[in-house]
Amino acid sequence: MSKVNIPQLVSILKDILPIGFNALHEPNLKGNELKYVTDCIESGWVSSVGSYVDLFEEKLAEFTGMKKAIVVVNGTAALHMCLKLVGVIENDEVLIPTLTFVATANAVTYCGAIPHFVDSEEESLGIDPIKLDAYLEEITIIRKNECFNKLTGRRIKALVPMHTFGHPVNIELLVKIAEKYHLELVEDAAESLGSYYKGIHTGNFGKIAALSFNGNKIVTTGGGGAILTNDLEIAKMAKHITTTAKIPHKWDFIHDCIGYNYRLPNINAAIGVAQLENIDYFLTSKRKLANQYIDRLSNVQGLSVYKEQEFSESNYWLNTILLDINNIYQRDEILTELNNQGIMSRPVWKSLHTLEMYKDCPRMSLEGAELLEKRIINIPSSVLLGEK
Amino acid sequence: MSKVNIPQLVSILKDILPIGFNALHEPNLKGNELKYVTDCIESGWVSSVGSYVDLFEEKLAEFTGMKKAIVVVNGTAALHMCLKLVGVIENDEVLIPTLTFVATANAVTYCGAIPHFVDSEEESLGIDPIKLDAYLEEITIIRKNECFNKLTGRRIKALVPMHTFGHPVNIELLVKIAEKYHLELVEDAAESLGSYYKGIHTGNFGKIAALSFNGNKIVTTGGGGAILTNDLEIAKMAKHITTTAKIPHKWDFIHDCIGYNYRLPNINAAIGVAQLENIDYFLTSKRKLANQYIDRLSNVQGLSVYKEQEFSESNYWLNTILLDINNIYQRDEILTELNNQGIMSRPVWKSLHTLEMYKDCPRMSLEGAELLEKRIINIPSSVLLGEK
Ligand SMILES: Cc1ncc(COP(=O)(O)O)c(C=O)c1O
Ligand SMILES: Cc1ncc(COP(=O)(O)O)c(C=O)c1O
Repeated sequence: MSKVNIPQLVSILKDILPIGFNALHEPNLKGNELKYVTDCIESGWVSSVGSYVDLFEEKLAEFTGMKKAIVVVNGTAALHMCLKLVGVIENDEVLIPTLTFVATANAVTYCGAIPHFVDSEEESLGIDPIKLDAYLEEITIIRKNECFNKLTGRRIKALVPMHTFGHPVNIELLVKIAEKYHLELVEDAAESLGSYYKGIHTGNFGKIAALSFNGNKIVTTGGGGAILTNDLEIAKMAKHITTTAKIPHKWDFIHDCIGYNYRLPNINAAIGVAQLENIDYFLTSKRKLANQYIDRLSNVQGLSVYKEQEFSESNYWLNTILLDINNIYQRDEILTELNNQGIMSRPVWKSLHTLEMYKDCPRMSLEGAELLEKRIINIPSSVLLGEK
Repeated sequence: MSKVNIPQLVSILKDILPIGFNALHEPNLKGNELKYVTDCIESGWVSSVGSYVDLFEEKLAEFTGMKKAIVVVNGTAALHMCLKLVGVIENDEVLIPTLTFVATANAVTYCGAIPHFVDSEEESLGIDPIKLDAYLEEITIIRKNECFNKLTGRRIKALVPMHTFGHPVNIELLVKIAEKYHLELVEDAAESLGSYYKGIHTGNFGKIAALSFNGNKIVTTGGGGAILTNDLEIAKMAKHITTTAKIPHKWDFIHDCIGYNYRLPNINAAIGVAQLENIDYFLTSKRKLANQYIDRLSNVQGLSVYKEQEFSESNYWLNTILLDINNIYQRDEILTELNNQGIMSRPVWKSLHTLEMYKDCPRMSLEGAELLEKRIINIPSSVLLGEK
């Protein structure tokens, strides 16, 4: 096992990338963004009422092949609502990977529920289905079609796989696990717009899913997110509770349950519509870049570049170097050197079970995730880098 | 006591207003909105990083005379954070008017706390301080500098007055009540940007306050809000928890408490900056319209138009007709007729204690609010209407 030759790594990356500073993921706003935004401002419809919200929702449903999309202020809000809509309540546990952005866990706590951390695997960088099954077999008991954690006594209500960096998780196995243990499956598809598992867009596998259109995502609205579902009843409720749960009336203000103000302003939706018009180009360009990384970095010893599984099609949102296990001690040196050289790079998130506020949450053994955390380095992945 | 002559009312309103349909409150986006938004799109900075967020926060602090403003996705989020930041936790009670938009109560529930409904008075359309004092005297007990509800056993943590339609509440008395009963004072200033109490901008009277920049507000950002405070420590914490509580680091993702993604995108802040540049004009124009309503409708018997108290300066966000008590039975007829005539009008919100999800919350007797609810009709108040 040889260590990573850092100057060689830098030199190949510099060869792939344009001269100058390369960000991790920059938005590309060169389509109709300005045109549609101008339309909003000139018509006065910048706010919640307006046609771009409807259009964006239609186009998202069409693109993902799902029945309904409900756009919201951001991916965190989308996840919060997804969990509410499948019935997560106070004191429930929700199974989530420890290796995810903190928003996944935060959304669980917004419901008064408790994150229960699950391990990840190298194949998908997402939840390890085999280990999860064995773990649930051991610690759960099913009573009246509900799953209980024998150790804490709490109900385990939902399972939230996340498609890490846009790479589809092994969702088919997770669907089976959700069925076996009577768990609601909620996909955190924040990073996986444009990613497919066996030809089906991510988000289609559970009852409901969340997207993010944050500034660093493949499609951005400044800030934004969406709830995706194939269940029309849930879609109706999603629209209702994200818009203050107001009952339509000529003038009366009657709200029939505790709602949220999670609606996406029309002006942000306008940007989203323009972005979606270019998503095929974004995906093609990002795939070109990913293939260059995979191809050219195969010459560097001591690391590999993550490649989609053969039945998956990744959006390659963030390209990922995986250090060989023996070289994890080089991670921070590589990060420092790449960043110094204007090649923006970062490690994966700190495992959530190590954060102060989540350190006492229930969890399985998390060796897979802990090791991955030391091995992952994300490298520049903007659309425009694929153009070179 | 004479009843309202509806044809006369319509005819005077038509004389004041331009020909055609008149909305309740339309945004005015004729300043630098398009210029700044274009700048965001052309520079690629539509998202959370970007200079308009900082600039908008500075300008808001300057305009309101407060030390710090922290902009967020909307007024509801701002209120939620205000309550968290003054220490409202699960099972606390929070005193709020029953006559407010539902978001005030919802924000309380997001903290796991319980709204406790308070009566309103005709003078300010906001909380009745005299009645509140008498009520708290009766039902509370102070233990170790904390206020407890003797009837429920729960702690009463905060008092949230709201400046209805931009008209300043009798805040001086409420400040005294908050002190007397050891309550945190949080101002719901969602509607009162540009409103002053004895020359001091609303929002300055408690520890923290919330603004809204929803599409119908005096200044809009599509959707948006702000937290205002004179306490620098709270301001720092507000910024931290509204931006996922991430600790600054070159690359590590460490979050030190449960945070929120409540940040306002740069593109929405850009609109806000342009809007604030014109606020003096907005306020002047709205005041002209209000004065016309007050003046001309004094000829209509059986109703009055709400006028700011002599020590207050209202932004006249929404102009308000108050039916004489004997004429409340005419409310729906007037609403129907005005709306039919293209003069958009609406009643005040349905009192929150009458909504299904809040009907079992603690409350004082609410006769003042219940009567006001039957008497109030809001009439068109857009900036451009003052130009005629
Ligand atoms: C896995 C994951 N979940 C949730 C989110 C939350 O999305 P947002 O930032 O739009 O709130 C993100 C993105 O930031 C994410 O990467
Ligand atoms: C009194 C009051 N509080 C809170 C809010 C919530 O603000 P937003 O709609 O921006 O969430 C509003 C405005 O809608 C309001 O009028």
